[in-house]
Amino acid sequence: MSRLRSLGVPGGAALSDERWARLAWSRLVEPENEKVAASIASHGAVDALDRFLSGPEAQAGAHAARLEALDLDRARHVLDRLRARVLVPGDDEWPSGLDQLTVPPLCLYARGECEVSVAEGSVAVVGSRAATAYGLSVAADLGEGLATRGVTVVSGAAFGIDAASHRGALAAGGPTVAVLARGLDRAYPQAHEGLLREIARHGAVVSELPPGWAPHRHRFLARNRLIAAMTVGTVVVEAGLRSGSLNTAKFARGLVRHVAAVPGPVTSVQSAGCHQLMREHGATLVTDAAEVLDLMGRLSLDAVGPVRAPETAESELDPVGLAVFSAVPVRAGADLARLQEHTALDTMTLLAALGRLGALGLVVRDEDRWRKSPPPRRGRSS
Amino acid sequence: MSRLRSLGVPGGAALSDERWARLAWSRLVEPENEKVAASIASHGAVDALDRFLSGPEAQAGAHAARLEALDLDRARHVLDRLRARVLVPGDDEWPSGLDQLTVPPLCLYARGECEVSVAEGSVAVVGSRAATAYGLSVAADLGEGLATRGVTVVSGAAFGIDAASHRGALAAGGPTVAVLARGLDRAYPQAHEGLLREIARHGAVVSELPPGWAPHRHRFLARNRLIAAMTVGTVVVEAGLRSGSLNTAKFARGLVRHVAAVPGPVTSVQSAGCHQLMREHGATLVTDAAEVLDLMGRLSLDAVGPVRAPETAESELDPVGLAVFSAVPVRAGADLARLQEHTALDTMTLLAALGRLGALGLVVRDEDRWRKSPPPRRGRSS
Repeated sequence: MSRLRSLGVPGGAALSDERWARLAWSRLVEPENEKVAASIASHGAVDALDRFLSGPEAQAGAHAARLEALDLDRARHVLDRLRARVLVPGDDEWPSGLDQLTVPPLCLYARGECEVSVAEGSVAVVGSRAATAYGLSVAADLGEGLATRGVTVVSGAAFGIDAASHRGALAAGGPTVAVLARGLDRAYPQAHEGLLREIARHGAVVSELPPGWAPHRHRFLARNRLIAAMTVGTVVVEAGLRSGSLNTAKFARGLVRHVAAVPGPVTSVQSAGCHQLMREHGATLVTDAAEVLDLMGRLSLDAVGPVRAPETAESELDPVGLAVFSAVPVRAGADLARLQEHTALDTMTLLAALGRLGALGLVVRDEDRWRKSPPPRRGRSS
Repeated sequence: MSRLRSLGVPGGAALSDERWARLAWSRLVEPENEKVAASIASHGAVDALDRFLSGPEAQAGAHAARLEALDLDRARHVLDRLRARVLVPGDDEWPSGLDQLTVPPLCLYARGECEVSVAEGSVAVVGSRAATAYGLSVAADLGEGLATRGVTVVSGAAFGIDAASHRGALAAGGPTVAVLARGLDRAYPQAHEGLLREIARHGAVVSELPPGWAPHRHRFLARNRLIAAMTVGTVVVEAGLRSGSLNTAKFARGLVRHVAAVPGPVTSVQSAGCHQLMREHGATLVTDAAEVLDLMGRLSLDAVGPVRAPETAESELDPVGLAVFSAVPVRAGADLARLQEHTALDTMTLLAALGRLGALGLVVRDEDRWRKSPPPRRGRSS
């Protein structure tokens, strides 16, 4: 495996680790390379890479230039500087939905305080860049409504609907996950540098592209398949008839995920794509977060109202209390280690906050796991 | 049949005619009287009436008072004064869809220049009284778009969506049919006196209630079943969650008619009923007249674009030419007698107008029938 030794693996060793091999692969080929995916599936990433390096393709065109530039030791330094990590299939943090893709990502670059596994059971909220005030408002409400109900919002951090849905989720304490169509070294779009920082602080920012790789048309399409695959369903809030978000919805349909769309005025070109999805492609009409969850399989939770304690109790929380409350799941419960990962609080602070939340009736402890309290019953009898 | 002789049939004869018997019935009982409908179905309207008059019910409460007041000779004079006619099942003009009702109307009072049979193949466009500017605009566009394509618009002449859809149809030359929840002696609502006059001039105004009968809640519901039954489908443009138009949609569904709804902003309470129809009751989302026709079975016509000659040719028409062009059907064609009924023009004027329309390529003659020309092909090759 001498060819693998030349790739600059830290320590000068031969590349024998799947993670490093996948990282190398991600720097050599474009996303959605079916041939490479098939070779990795047959031989593993290390052997597949060795075969590739000894073949003619490695010496041709773009591959040759990329191979020439490949320096895994340097790549590691870049990732350290970005505080980014590399995820590969099988990692705890790896979103299992990605395995259902015909061509899964070679690896996933991730930044942020939350594990990318917060995307399990998440919902994608996507739409036009050129959104209307109406669309922005609905997207923010959906983001907030989903986050309030303990559902992670996944989107693309683009202008318009994407950003509004992330912001809505952040307003409710998150978490939210942004999937970028460029490497994590730069914000994309540049104007969303602050937004992406907040998303990383209360969730995760991910990409299948290595740092330095710029967004191209194909990479946007490839990114959309990740959003569709990581989530249980996609909601399109506003979309012109050529919006890329329709492409995300198409991927979602292909992956047997839920596809929903928000209606709007028939006079608005920004709702035309949504109406088309509903008329011609069987997308379900949704008007709020409760209906999204009703569709996407959380009927029992939703039927009793928002999973939220009365405003009065929550409004008494300090920022630490709110952060912990946001991190506590609704159903399955989370143990202390998990909550620490999500909140980045030390054990004493976390336990004290959980104690206060318990006293307020917002959180219940079940052996060594914590979950949100069931919502109060509706009606006057409560 | 001496009891029937007392009802004041013109000429003092015994009431032996189904039409007069049904007119008498309509002045004795409320719409949707199942028992009366069953008796008429078994014995015919004349015998059923004779049986009723000899039974105890005729002498009790409201029936007795109505019987006391019943004077068919006077009723005829009232109808003459209103220029109204009485239709009964089996008449050429009788809308055949009404026969599919569990309790069809006893008779139908009608005014206007068109036969009520213009409602064959028609579409109901209904909705809230408290419509928004958006809803009014969409309803008017739908009314105009349907009329332009040769489809009669049926509605209830109420404030809001109903009126807007009638006005849209009138703007395109009609015809349009208003179904009222009160007798034809007065406009309802009063403010729509002028609108109803225009509807009568370019279509028909109908009611199952005799002149003088006021609108009550039950009569509105009964009226809605007529709108649903007379049409091939109902489009709800805007509806709050308690709008009566949802009731029309429910009747339409029960009668296996098409049910469609127009989406709107999810933030608008006036669109909430439409969204509910689509989400929970399988209504089809429609955004314009072309989509309504696509749904309601005129795909082949619609696929080649609006059934309309180029604007330039039409804009050259004088009012008579436009009226005749509007009256000429798209597919089956109409003979001279039919076109005279629709246009109220004398034979010479009508033939001259048809000649001009033929010369402009807007109308084709097929033996003794006239129909609109097929629309021009799309694309540059035409």
